[in-house]
Amino acid sequence: MTQHRVPAELSPVLTAATRAHEAAAGLAPLPRAAKDAALLAVADALLARTQEIVEANARDVERARTAGTAESVVDRLTLTPERVRAIASDVRDVAALPDPVGEVVRGSTLPNGIDLRQVRVPLGVVGIIYEARPNVTVDAAALCLKSGNAVLLRGSSSAYASNTALVGVVRDALEEAGLPADAVQLVPGESRDSVRELMRARGLVDVLIPRGGASLIRTVVEESTVPVIETGTGNCHVYVDAAADIDTAVDVLINSKAHRVSVCNAAETLLVHRDIADAFLPRALDALADAGVTVHADATVLAHAESSKATVVPADESDWETEYLSYDIAAAVVDSLDDAVAHIRRWSSGHTEAIVTTSQGAARRFTQLVDSTTVTVNASTRFTDGGQFGFGAEIGISTQKLHARGPMGLPELTSTKYIVTGDGHIR
Amino acid sequence: MTQHRVPAELSPVLTAATRAHEAAAGLAPLPRAAKDAALLAVADALLARTQEIVEANARDVERARTAGTAESVVDRLTLTPERVRAIASDVRDVAALPDPVGEVVRGSTLPNGIDLRQVRVPLGVVGIIYEARPNVTVDAAALCLKSGNAVLLRGSSSAYASNTALVGVVRDALEEAGLPADAVQLVPGESRDSVRELMRARGLVDVLIPRGGASLIRTVVEESTVPVIETGTGNCHVYVDAAADIDTAVDVLINSKAHRVSVCNAAETLLVHRDIADAFLPRALDALADAGVTVHADATVLAHAESSKATVVPADESDWETEYLSYDIAAAVVDSLDDAVAHIRRWSSGHTEAIVTTSQGAARRFTQLVDSTTVTVNASTRFTDGGQFGFGAEIGISTQKLHARGPMGLPELTSTKYIVTGDGHIR
Repeated sequence: MTQHRVPAELSPVLTAATRAHEAAAGLAPLPRAAKDAALLAVADALLARTQEIVEANARDVERARTAGTAESVVDRLTLTPERVRAIASDVRDVAALPDPVGEVVRGSTLPNGIDLRQVRVPLGVVGIIYEARPNVTVDAAALCLKSGNAVLLRGSSSAYASNTALVGVVRDALEEAGLPADAVQLVPGESRDSVRELMRARGLVDVLIPRGGASLIRTVVEESTVPVIETGTGNCHVYVDAAADIDTAVDVLINSKAHRVSVCNAAETLLVHRDIADAFLPRALDALADAGVTVHADATVLAHAESSKATVVPADESDWETEYLSYDIAAAVVDSLDDAVAHIRRWSSGHTEAIVTTSQGAARRFTQLVDSTTVTVNASTRFTDGGQFGFGAEIGISTQKLHARGPMGLPELTSTKYIVTGDGHIR
Repeated sequence: MTQHRVPAELSPVLTAATRAHEAAAGLAPLPRAAKDAALLAVADALLARTQEIVEANARDVERARTAGTAESVVDRLTLTPERVRAIASDVRDVAALPDPVGEVVRGSTLPNGIDLRQVRVPLGVVGIIYEARPNVTVDAAALCLKSGNAVLLRGSSSAYASNTALVGVVRDALEEAGLPADAVQLVPGESRDSVRELMRARGLVDVLIPRGGASLIRTVVEESTVPVIETGTGNCHVYVDAAADIDTAVDVLINSKAHRVSVCNAAETLLVHRDIADAFLPRALDALADAGVTVHADATVLAHAESSKATVVPADESDWETEYLSYDIAAAVVDSLDDAVAHIRRWSSGHTEAIVTTSQGAARRFTQLVDSTTVTVNASTRFTDGGQFGFGAEIGISTQKLHARGPMGLPELTSTKYIVTGDGHIR
């Protein structure tokens, strides 16, 4: 709680942040029942006012089409009655999750008789900066409410009408449930200036979570004085060890790369141990070809590709650092597990790396040496996900080391405080 | 692990950071025995080379005296053979603490049979920026080593000779123990520019912990692109509730204020419920006078002070936000517990606040509503301390909400990673 001096005339963004800060004080001590009742009211209101939401969304969609936006982006922007029902159902799921607030993380009686407890408390005000997916608006609001936080939502201007409608519905439902409506607010203004103001609102905003493209995230990380949780960039690797089972390696590779190419936990680079290259690469290259994947190959992989049906192009250094998010993969042969680790250490974004091996020793060494949010052994990189990990929900995947690393569920939206209880204890 | 491009000619600070980053990779997988052996070697070397350390320190002390430095600061700077023995003994204590690295924080078998484990890992490279206390040099190095981190130490230029000698001893001992000497480095250069470079070394340095004055901490928080853990500022409050036991209230107040005035967990403001003011204030004012404390009083406290032996001056708004770190306390009468909470919410630095009360309901409400690292009930604010909490050691007291809050022990110097183990699992 850094002290903040509020100027006489507040900008719209700082006014919103101040209101959020005040709303957060009201949310923090709320019992679970009050928060869950509000979430269920939000779900009901989303269903009751679907028509209004879909109509607002239609204006965003029309504007996007007129602007010549790519159809895949328009699809992510679009809300149908069915999608609104799915959003409402997700809100109910969040209501059903355990409340992280109040959990005793550590506790003991000290030698002098003092009772010490470390308990989870809300962070306070969470700012989310995201792109054109209106479902994130409600998801983020629900997760923040459940964890006792107020939220400032800064969505894409291309979803402004949709977000305004959704947040209006959420706020009305909160008010009817007796919670402060200002617990959920859209950040006013559609320009980049509003993001900049949010990043300087230290003392009013407790954390910023940027979700979206690499350039947005870099800007926030570099310019924000509000603490940031960096999310999302995933230059993930699959390393096929000398001792890999070939069928397993092909399955894990294809699933990691091609199950869904536009997501951060998709594989972007394949590393193959030299001793298994002759046996593995022909199978792998054909399977990648069948999945429609273009291979950006080093010299050794290129040589193997001549006799395959794969689409192959020569790789240069830039391929090792590229997060394609497309039907492309970089591929190289390495001399050892340690060389694979060195490659990953140099080029990875630290999201998820997989090893395929039957060797317990290799698995142990790889998991010890690789410094990423998640290391998988004989499993697809696609498992790095709050839903897959059983968290019930996810506000993003942190690729930083401080506070939260990997998929973030409700506990990652909390801080802690210590409660020290004595009988007049002094030092 | 953000990617970093290393320019052809590195500055001395970035060279040190790059070496630390490389050393950190070697430290991370070390078993506890190797780290503890190195720490014991450091302790032995400190004892064996005490003469050399004390001589180097004498140069700093002479320089400080010549510059007319206050005697209290000179005292904190001074190393005697006895103090070096105490530092060596602290290093042995750190060796005896459990290793946080490898601890499984969460673990389960998912419904699909995947084994999921969240394991503690070192942060990587920790940068510590601190003032003229050479004992911090060795303390911080020991805690970082034990938790598998490399450390970059940026001490005060006034302790440069002492720090150079101490770090030389530590590095020699590490090398003899087979650990990378670059795990412990002094940041080269004595100017502010070296701090600035450290703050921009994102991707090489994983976290910066500034320990020291408010202006240093503010600069680091505002200018650093490396994640920061804010420490130290403590504008702590003692609230004496309507239902307080008067003897307990006087004891807790005097201990919180006067046990040691120069520390961040000392009380700086007294808030008294109106209903107990007549009974409590005469006793409190006399006790504060006996302890040599000047009271910066609001109108109601001033009125009570007329009949006491207290030294009293009228308070203005600036008193509510001042961390005196001296024999001074601000004092005000409030109408209710909620008004005390509102005062704390407005003015506190969020470090530690105490309530003295016999009412279970008041204790519960105060601990729920006050949003600080630590809330004490019938106990001195002075208990907010890693040693008192039983952590065995402390790298500082975080006053921020992200990553670590309150006293930071070894677990707070770690991050986590997820290890996902399957049998060829795909989605």
